[in-house]
Amino acid sequence: MPQQIRTVAIVGCGVIGMSWATLCLSRGLKVIVSDPATGAKEALQRYLDQARPFLEAQGNFEELATNYEFVSDIVPRLAEADFVQENGPEREEFKRELMKSLDEWTRPGVVIASSSSGLPSSAFIQRCKRDPGRILIGHPFNPPHLIPLVEVVPHAGTSEEYISTAMRFYQSLGKKPILVHQEVPGFVSNRLQAAINNEAYSLISRGVVSAEDLDFAVTQGPGLRWALTGPIATNALGGGGGPDGFVRRIERLGPSIRAWEDDMLKHKFDWSEERLSSLQDSVEEWLGATDWTKLVEDRDSLLVQLLAAKGNKSSMRTQLP
Amino acid sequence: MPQQIRTVAIVGCGVIGMSWATLCLSRGLKVIVSDPATGAKEALQRYLDQARPFLEAQGNFEELATNYEFVSDIVPRLAEADFVQENGPEREEFKRELMKSLDEWTRPGVVIASSSSGLPSSAFIQRCKRDPGRILIGHPFNPPHLIPLVEVVPHAGTSEEYISTAMRFYQSLGKKPILVHQEVPGFVSNRLQAAINNEAYSLISRGVVSAEDLDFAVTQGPGLRWALTGPIATNALGGGGGPDGFVRRIERLGPSIRAWEDDMLKHKFDWSEERLSSLQDSVEEWLGATDWTKLVEDRDSLLVQLLAAKGNKSSMRTQLP
Repeated sequence: MPQQIRTVAIVGCGVIGMSWATLCLSRGLKVIVSDPATGAKEALQRYLDQARPFLEAQGNFEELATNYEFVSDIVPRLAEADFVQENGPEREEFKRELMKSLDEWTRPGVVIASSSSGLPSSAFIQRCKRDPGRILIGHPFNPPHLIPLVEVVPHAGTSEEYISTAMRFYQSLGKKPILVHQEVPGFVSNRLQAAINNEAYSLISRGVVSAEDLDFAVTQGPGLRWALTGPIATNALGGGGGPDGFVRRIERLGPSIRAWEDDMLKHKFDWSEERLSSLQDSVEEWLGATDWTKLVEDRDSLLVQLLAAKGNKSSMRTQLP
Repeated sequence: MPQQIRTVAIVGCGVIGMSWATLCLSRGLKVIVSDPATGAKEALQRYLDQARPFLEAQGNFEELATNYEFVSDIVPRLAEADFVQENGPEREEFKRELMKSLDEWTRPGVVIASSSSGLPSSAFIQRCKRDPGRILIGHPFNPPHLIPLVEVVPHAGTSEEYISTAMRFYQSLGKKPILVHQEVPGFVSNRLQAAINNEAYSLISRGVVSAEDLDFAVTQGPGLRWALTGPIATNALGGGGGPDGFVRRIERLGPSIRAWEDDMLKHKFDWSEERLSSLQDSVEEWLGATDWTKLVEDRDSLLVQLLAAKGNKSSMRTQLP
């Protein structure tokens, strides 16, 4: 296992790969990137230019942003990598072949992490001959250089040692890795998002609320709290604080909540053409006039402010280095 | 209907009533408050003292914070009210009697809003003889003087005129009211919260993730985005932006999401003793050592910063006055 991670191989450089590259570069790491797509090299250069303020906050832009090599074939360069982050398309067969080759050419003891957002790693390690125990999922959130969460999902044969190396490496990048103990479909955050989205689609398609008001029901309400306290701590606060507060809330509201759940299940969004069409009409009305460039710019600038403000509060326990 | 709302009756002054009173006072309104509980008057005074920075941001603390009367019986004073916000216990029989009397003594044309978080108003207007058409739900989120969301939920007989008066009044207080078109159990935000909480309880009680990591899976990931873009806009951004982005995301990820949903349904949290106990053990481990006073203080201060920062970004479309 490398004493220190200095060089990272970024395999696949779409939206996720570009953001990982930007993050690694911002921390002074050497990056070797590959992607077979036409224009991928130029896209990365543009991405880095746009992320200039982010990189400048960490050091000298010219120095950091040029510390990478874009190569046509990653294989001959894998021997230099102290950590591999794979971001290829989410197709089982594709990933099986890719992982076989990554495992073959990466030095012993080096972690191979996949950004897969849905496929668990047990689905694509079959052809790895050297050490499939070093393969795991390191699933980031978009945009990964800003959003701290990384879901680390080992398969049953991933070694503890590699898990802890990956956790420490992500922490050293300023990320907040969490450990997912079982390979459940959708891991953790995508399941939580699916839960809220299904109910959102249901309420909108039934005409209970417009898509616009549904979004405000989150961004002006519980979403503000979820940026600061997670569902469990928020529940505990609702019951007056403390683990006892959590129990009190469950005891007091449990029967109401179960009645809501029954009604939600009864009206579960069923993905039928009819309900999809009603949903899309309301979405069109809400989002048709949005200035997306401005929205992304504002969102990213607010994310940076919010994360900095949270980092100054010990009680938020962000555990960032 | 009053030309302008100058005096607000706050009926019931627990946590929610105190926060409504604070908000109304901060906007220079006269407030008449009642609550039969011992010590309620002193509790309100303490609450106002603690909210001093909030009130000072709006004007002269001494002037604003003393512009209320705490009365033992609201009935003889209802004639002075231009808006009534009711915050009594959520028991049908209790609310039926209370609403009967509020409707009897409040001037014609004055809206009577209930902070009820679960009971729809159709459940408690039966004995109102004068004008049940002015009764509706105005459900705030804790703490209501900071969190902008108010769910306005009319019953089938509520008049359009009163709905729009209530919407405009809440907007004038700096709130973000949304209109819920049907009296579904749990309204909108509590259903969305129940959806995410059920999946959270399920994952923790199954040992997939610790309560601590579950909270971070939100506060360091999707929760950060939900403070800024709601589920629908976030979906659209995930598909590259625009209403088309929403459709693209549904087409691309729909099949995966439906598979996750099937698995979630299969493992739905069932509220059994066994799973509750496993959930509570993990919650205890996560929250046992939390300093709740500090957490609430930090949360509130971050909420104020976050809302101010959002208010400066036109794309966030907070539509606050």
